[in-house]
Parts: sequence; C-alpha cells; structure tokens
Amino acid sequence: MTAAGKPSRESRVEMTEIVLPGDTNALGTIFGGKVMQWIDIAASVAGMRHSGGSVVTASIDALTFLTPIHLGEIVRLQAQVNFVGRTSMEVGVRVEAENPRTATRRYTTKAYLTFVAIDADGKPRAIPPLVAENDDDRRRAADAEARRKARLALRPPSA
Amino acid sequence: MTAAGKPSRESRVEMTEIVLPGDTNALGTIFGGKVMQWIDIAASVAGMRHSGGSVVTASIDALTFLTPIHLGEIVRLQAQVNFVGRTSMEVGVRVEAENPRTATRRYTTKAYLTFVAIDADGKPRAIPPLVAENDDDRRRAADAEARRKARLALRPPSA
Amino acid sequence: MTAAGKPSRESRVEMTEIVLPGDTNALGTIFGGKVMQWIDIAASVAGMRHSGGSVVTASIDALTFLTPIHLGEIVRLQAQVNFVGRTSMEVGVRVEAENPRTATRRYTTKAYLTFVAIDADGKPRAIPPLVAENDDDRRRAADAEARRKARLALRPPSA
Amino acid sequence: MTAAGKPSRESRVEMTEIVLPGDTNALGTIFGGKVMQWIDIAASVAGMRHSGGSVVTASIDALTFLTPIHLGEIVRLQAQVNFVGRTSMEVGVRVEAENPRTATRRYTTKAYLTFVAIDADGKPRAIPPLVAENDDDRRRAADAEARRKARLALRPPSA
Amino acid sequence: MTAAGKPSRESRVEMTEIVLPGDTNALGTIFGGKVMQWIDIAASVAGMRHSGGSVVTASIDALTFLTPIHLGEIVRLQAQVNFVGRTSMEVGVRVEAENPRTATRRYTTKAYLTFVAIDADGKPRAIPPLVAENDDDRRRAADAEARRKARLALRPPSA
Amino acid sequence: MTAAGKPSRESRVEMTEIVLPGDTNALGTIFGGKVMQWIDIAASVAGMRHSGGSVVTASIDALTFLTPIHLGEIVRLQAQVNFVGRTSMEVGVRVEAENPRTATRRYTTKAYLTFVAIDADGKPRAIPPLVAENDDDRRRAADAEARRKARLALRPPSA
Repeated sequence: MTAAGKPSRESRVEMTEIVLPGDTNALGTIFGGKVMQWIDIAASVAGMRHSGGSVVTASIDALTFLTPIHLGEIVRLQAQVNFVGRTSMEVGVRVEAENPRTATRRYTTKAYLTFVAIDADGKPRAIPPLVAENDDDRRRAADAEARRKARLALRPPSA
Repeated sequence: MTAAGKPSRESRVEMTEIVLPGDTNALGTIFGGKVMQWIDIAASVAGMRHSGGSVVTASIDALTFLTPIHLGEIVRLQAQVNFVGRTSMEVGVRVEAENPRTATRRYTTKAYLTFVAIDADGKPRAIPPLVAENDDDRRRAADAEARRKARLALRPPSA
Repeated sequence: MTAAGKPSRESRVEMTEIVLPGDTNALGTIFGGKVMQWIDIAASVAGMRHSGGSVVTASIDALTFLTPIHLGEIVRLQAQVNFVGRTSMEVGVRVEAENPRTATRRYTTKAYLTFVAIDADGKPRAIPPLVAENDDDRRRAADAEARRKARLALRPPSA
Repeated sequence: MTAAGKPSRESRVEMTEIVLPGDTNALGTIFGGKVMQWIDIAASVAGMRHSGGSVVTASIDALTFLTPIHLGEIVRLQAQVNFVGRTSMEVGVRVEAENPRTATRRYTTKAYLTFVAIDADGKPRAIPPLVAENDDDRRRAADAEARRKARLALRPPSA
Repeated sequence: MTAAGKPSRESRVEMTEIVLPGDTNALGTIFGGKVMQWIDIAASVAGMRHSGGSVVTASIDALTFLTPIHLGEIVRLQAQVNFVGRTSMEVGVRVEAENPRTATRRYTTKAYLTFVAIDADGKPRAIPPLVAENDDDRRRAADAEARRKARLALRPPSA
Repeated sequence: MTAAGKPSRESRVEMTEIVLPGDTNALGTIFGGKVMQWIDIAASVAGMRHSGGSVVTASIDALTFLTPIHLGEIVRLQAQVNFVGRTSMEVGVRVEAENPRTATRRYTTKAYLTFVAIDADGKPRAIPPLVAENDDDRRRAADAEARRKARLALRPPSA
C-alpha cells in the first residue's frame, strides 16, 4: 500500500539513556561520537518504521551541539520522519539533557539525517509517502526541502 | 515537597534500541546480559525521575524472557514506578520486540526491579509518595506489594 | 547418557573481573547492568556445561545487591547448577568483591537464574539429571524448588 | 605564538581500523554510528593538534556515506584543519575502505565538522591562524567558508 | 609482613568467558586483541593479589596462540605468579577453549607478563617474596628466570 | 606475483586514538589490555596489506610499556612488516603518546607480533618476500631473525 502514505507520528521514536563514565571524554562531558551513535540508532528506527524495512544512513546533513551534556545526566532523543523522497527520507532528531536533581530539561542537540530504504539485495526500494496532518508537519517538510536544496547547491564539494 | 507525591506517569520512560551483531549470542538472538543492561538503564531513569536524584539497583525481583529477540529487530522498553516505600521503590519494565518488516510488536520480557534512592553521601534518602490516578495504578501497586511479601517470606535464602 | 546424571561440581564456574572506569556509574560504583551481564555469562557457562550444549536465559528469579562494588575492586563470581527439570535448570551465582589492598572479600550479590537447554533448531532438549552428592547439594535443590513454587504461585503477573 | 600560525599539515591525522563483527549492522556492513565515532575521534585529534589543547565538537556540517563498508575491510581516515575562526575551526575527514585481497581503496565517506577550542574552565580560547601553503590549502579554506555561509543562511532551523 | 612471603596458590586466578559475536574477527574466530584484554585482566588480578595493591603491566614477554577459538566456545583462563623480583613479578596465564557440546578442553594460548607493583603515588613498591611449595613452583620460577635473562640479552632492541 | 616481493613501506600503518575514560584503569592511565587491542589491530592491518588477505595473530613476542599513557592524551601507533617467512611474518609496532597541550611526543610502547597468512579455508598460505630498500630495513630484518632464534631456543616452555 505505498499509495496510502503514513503520518509521521506512526514512526516517531523516543530513546532514553544515562551518561555513564564510559560515554564521556576527558572533560567529564559526553563524547561527541557517542551522541552521534545514539542519534544514528534513534533516526534509523524512525526510518525503519516509516519504510517498513531496512535502511542505511546516506548522510548527516546538520548536527549541532548547543550545550555539553554531563556525566550522570539523562539523555532523551526524539526522532521523526520530516520529508520523504522516492527511496530516501530525512529524519530529524532532537536531543535533550535532563538533570535528575532539578528535573529540568535543556535542548542540547539537533540533527537531520538522510536514509535510503533498501531491499534484501541492498538495492534502494520505494518508500510510502508522508502524510502531513497539521501545520507542524508541513513546516518540517518545507524546512527539510530547503536544506536539501542548499545541500545540492553546495555540491560537488572538495574532499 | 515530599508530602505532595507524584503520579507514575511523570516518571515513565521509553527507550528504543536496535539489536546489532555486537548485542547477540552465538545463536543470532540477543544476549541475555545485554537486555538486562538496557532494562537496568530504563528502570534507573524511572527511579531517578520519581525520586529526583541518584538511585542504586537493590534487586531484580523477577525478569522473564518470554520469546527470543532476533538480530536486526527493534526493541522498545517502557519503565514505570509501581510502588514506593520510604527510601526504596519498585519499577516495572515491559520489553517488546518489533519486526520492522511486518510492523508487528510482541511482548518479550517483563522485569521488576527495586531501587534505593541515595543522597550525595551514598545514604538512603526519602522518596516522594506515589499518587495512584486510576485502577491500573492501584492494581500495579497491589501486585508489587504481593511480590514484596513473597520475597520477604523466602528469606533468608541459601547462597 | 542422560540417565547417568552429573553432580553440580562438574559444571561449577569461577569468573574474575576488575571494575574498570567503563564499568561504573556516575557514583564511582559498579553499574548494575554490568554486574548482570557478568552474572548472565557465568550462569550460562554452568548451564552449558551441565546440559552439554546451548542454553538461553529464561528468567532471573532473584538478584540482590547487598553492598556496592567500587572502582578498582576485584569481582569474583561463582556459579553452579542448583536444580534440574526436564528441559530447564536453576543456576545460582554468588558474587564477591575483593579489596586488593586489604585482601578481604565481601559477599555483595546473589542471583538465581533459570535456563532452558536448546538444540540446533532452537527447540528445548532434555537435560541430564543432577546428582546430589552431599547435604549442601540437597539443601540447594530444596531451596530452588521452593523458589520455583513461589514463582508459579505469583503468576500470571501484571505487565 | 598565536600570531605565528600553523600550516594544516602539522595537525594532519591518519587513523586505521578493521571492520569487526561488533562494528556492523544486521546487513553485514558497518553501522553508521560507528563510522561517526571514528570520524569524531580523528577530527578531534586534528583540532587538538592545531589548537594545542582541548576541543569540543560544535557541529557536523556534512557527512555523506557514498558506498557501504563491509565486514573485514580496512578503514582509513584522514583528517585535517580546513579553516580557522577566532575560537572555532572546520576539520575535514576523508574515509576510505580498503579491500585487503585486491589492495584497492575506494572513497566512501567525507565529513566536515566544526570544533571549538576550550580552556581548563570550559571557556572558548583563541586558536592560532591557519597558514595556507599551496593552492589546495586555499581551495579547502574557500570551500569551508562557503559551507559556513550556507549554514548561517539556513538558521534558525526548525526543531 | 613482606618478609613472610606467600605461595603462588594464594594469588591464583580463574576467569571464564564465552566467545560472543562482538569478540570475533571477520573469520568467526576470536579477535586476538580480545584474548589479550582478558589475559591482561586475569594476570593483573594475580599480581594485585600477590602484591596486595595496584600493579601496572610492564611487558608481555611471550604470548602464543596455538589454535583458534571459535564463536560460542567457552574460554577458561588461569593465571599465577611464577617469579618475584624486588618490585616486579612474572605472571603466567594459561588459556583453554572448551567446546560445550563435547565437553573437551584444548590448550590454546599461553602468556607470560611482567607487572610492577605501584603505590598511591605511582612509584614502584616492594613485593612479598614468592614461597615455592613444590617442584612445580620451583620449575616455573627457574623457567621465568631463564626468560628474563633471554629478554635482557636481546636489549636494547630496535624500534 | 609472489616472486616479485614488496618493500615494507607499502604495508606501513598509522593509527591514532584518544585515551577516553572507558579506556583507562582505576589509576587514570590507559588499561594495558586496551593498548594491546589497538596494537593487534594496527599490526594485523600491516600483515593484511603485505600478504594481500586474511591473517591470524600467532604470537606476541615482546611488548614493553616504557611509560604510562594518561587520560586525554593522543596515542599514535605505527606498524610495519620487519621480516617474512614462508607463511608467517613479524610485524613491529611503535606506540607514542602525545600531550595535546605541549605537542610533545614520547615513545611509550613497542611490540613485535608474528602473524600467519591464511586462505579461505583457514590454511596457511604463501606470503610475498619482503624487499629491503635501505639499511634500516636490513637492520629490522636482522633483529627480527635474532628474536626468532631466541624464541625457538626457549621452547618448549613450561605452561
């Protein structure tokens, strides 16, 4: 039923982690590569749920660390599909750090990743369209398209 | 405001993972110790959120693996505080496996863990009461009390 | 020779680890999920040795953390089969922490796990009986049966 | 001697890895989050070398996976500083996969990351200028500036 | 009581592991670096027990892999102090692989490591003498001395 | 073209890492087992490149830790083939620690490992000869032969 389409809330993902010593750098804050790993997992699940099968990461189009996350803090990641092409889709991930003592959350990282849906032979396969249900959904899709155009305008990049 | 109490929905946790090859045993299903690690993290976060600070795992009172989880499947863990004593609390964790191709979820593991809330010196500290908001909350608290009594009746256990 | 049976000492397991920074939580003590992982490995080996093949973790029936284990301490785990059913068995694990400076050991955790022996197709297979050789063996088997009955009495549990 | 400046070859980094089963996804190719972790380490070292101290990842501005990397292949990462601002700098990372049997290398991933140099209190600190030594260096710096402008033009992004 | 001395059986170590997919190389056998890690932990514990405190690895003097260890096999490591100098000691480690189905064990690796005992400031500290209790102990100490002399004769080595 | 031979520079490997908290021991310096893992990877790649296929670690013949490596330092490993037999070869690895603040490097570890080249069935396969290009190459090969003879003279070792 590729014609039918799916709203983004059906593939939304929530992921929760604690920053343990093995996840930190020498400064006592989370090691950037560890957050990237969690972001890739959360975003992949959103892509797998929307496309109904395997996906591979094609690119990270923007990932910004706004504030450091400290040892012992709780990390919450929320991922959702923003935009769908024929065989690829953009997933947005919002990362928040939560101080268990004060119960306050702060927005620390956001990321946009592009995934390609693949079949059993590793070939790209068609993805169901994304059904916008409200203005938020439409704004996210429009922003994703703007990022996609900016990316294409910058290519071919130097190595 | 320890007198005020909190409902369990305020500390509820959702965690999502993908079963990667490094998480499996020689049979191609998830390694039991890995699920336990995820369960401990999800449950700890629920305990940290309810108690507003650090917690340590005191016991796993029951953890049952109903069906194996396979390589490449999505794992969803949901944790919530079921019952609160003066300085300890029971957290229940429900684990589901999700096949990305069929989008079906099956209930694979449940676990009950007890955590003690501790202060900066590692001493037990008081926990806000749990406010039951509906029949589900009351049933969970009653079941938790029954498990606690059964545990106490079995002690002192042989080594 | 399933009729022959085996004494528990033939499948006994000893495992030794050091608590490294990557095994700790933000409090400088061992992360609960890490101990669980070690317990699952030690207990699995006891089950593999007794049953002569693959096993899967069916449940953790009780696991109690009596005292925290600190960074830099030595951890010793001892596992043995306590009770054998037709295709499942209970394994007990005793965990001790050892301070290298004082050479003192303290009993920190005990756990009882149930494993199912499986064949190449993942189906349950018969396990050789457990031969009690002394009063200790008989007490462990009797305690394991009592725990098993208590578990069955509590079911079906709430999610 | 911050006035003196440094050429990019002084902070160049080479990193080599083998794709082991624990680094792969369910498809037998490298897990995206793992490559990101390696990229973050290689790029951090380039940033530490150029700035002479600690750095934190501020953003990944573009990271593209051109072809999958397979289990057992050798991975070579090369990182270098492309552009330097007052307290931040862009590092480019080139990732190649090498088939040990055919001794052929293919270009599989490129990434641009921005790092901020920080002092012992976690505050941004000044970075020595980057001295262009040839046309390649100048082209890289010009491309980095173009990417920086494109990023600023896209902000503030939607969450 | 450094004068008193200790026999090697007081610091003997047994360690047990299972080869999981995350421990293997692309050939389905254990990754050499993983065995080395286990050997270093087992040997360190023997050194910590004999010297009553912290130790650092000074060298691996010989480590031979006689046969590969396969995915799913049980690994048993046994470590013991062979020879003690003023502040350093040689530890021998024997590694066996055990096939759970056939219950056969084969000798797969042996290693000799030298550790230095250090105090709280990281300075070398005196180690209690090793008390030989039987011919085996005496043979091990004599072999260790022979290896030590051979090492010294080879220095200074080329880089 | 096994007759042709290859110079050692064609298989030279450079690997760079940062010491993160998860790589350290309780003393805040790098855990010996972690360095060994990096050394095994760097040396394996040199062996894979020279032999054009899979290799397995046969032995570590000498590995000396000259000075400790601290949390937050950069680690640089350089590996190269020193000597080639019919189906086995010696690889030397030089490990340096680099303090990012002072930009000074110190030589901290050297290691000599022997690898066997294997074919798809896990059988030893012939390795191209090593072509010495200068005096350094000749000195390394001569030193490697001396170590090989010393090893053979010590065998058979006690367990």
